[in-house]
Amino acid sequence: MYERKIPLTLGCGFELVRQVVNGKWKFMLLYCLHEGITRPSAMERALPGISRRVINIQLNQLIGHGLVSKQDYEEKPPRVEYFLTDLGKSLIPFIIDLGTWGEEHKGTLQLNIV
Amino acid sequence: MYERKIPLTLGCGFELVRQVVNGKWKFMLLYCLHEGITRPSAMERALPGISRRVINIQLNQLIGHGLVSKQDYEEKPPRVEYFLTDLGKSLIPFIIDLGTWGEEHKGTLQLNIV
Repeated sequence: MYERKIPLTLGCGFELVRQVVNGKWKFMLLYCLHEGITRPSAMERALPGISRRVINIQLNQLIGHGLVSKQDYEEKPPRVEYFLTDLGKSLIPFIIDLGTWGEEHKGTLQLNIV
Repeated sequence: MYERKIPLTLGCGFELVRQVVNGKWKFMLLYCLHEGITRPSAMERALPGISRRVINIQLNQLIGHGLVSKQDYEEKPPRVEYFLTDLGKSLIPFIIDLGTWGEEHKGTLQLNIV
């Protein structure tokens, strides 16, 4: 019997994406940066429910994955900003597509997500 | 100062998507169904590393979220198949986009993902 396997490549692509956007806030943090919200304090205000600690952890993971870069101005008080790398920018259209899909199907999804 | 907030709608869309595709195998299970791999035994063969238990749990979650339906033929031995609902089908293009993105950037991502 012909054994249909997920093309290892696409399966691998899915797995890499899953690892990169894994975490409750990754989509929204990437979207913040896309929207020009580059400072943690502003992100905290833009994303009700997120903590500064989670912002720092998830931004550092995104830096580690090459999607985000950090600019430390070495000032007192400390001032840092985060920016999308080219790799990060290339993911944005797909993230917006997914957010829009979620938004368009909000009625059905909210009914089903308990 | 003008407080830029993530448009609550898009933030809500992200959150709904996150809940729906949360989990290591959701992308790949949805892709299996898209590829016509509808029986758990075939999914198990198509996705090295997945267990039957995880297949059942995550498919039931996808059913709960309205993306997948189940057909039980009530035969001995038992025979069940799973299918994408219209809602599930509508998510596929975005999932394939993400998998392709992951695939295209595999070199960089694999370097960064330790």
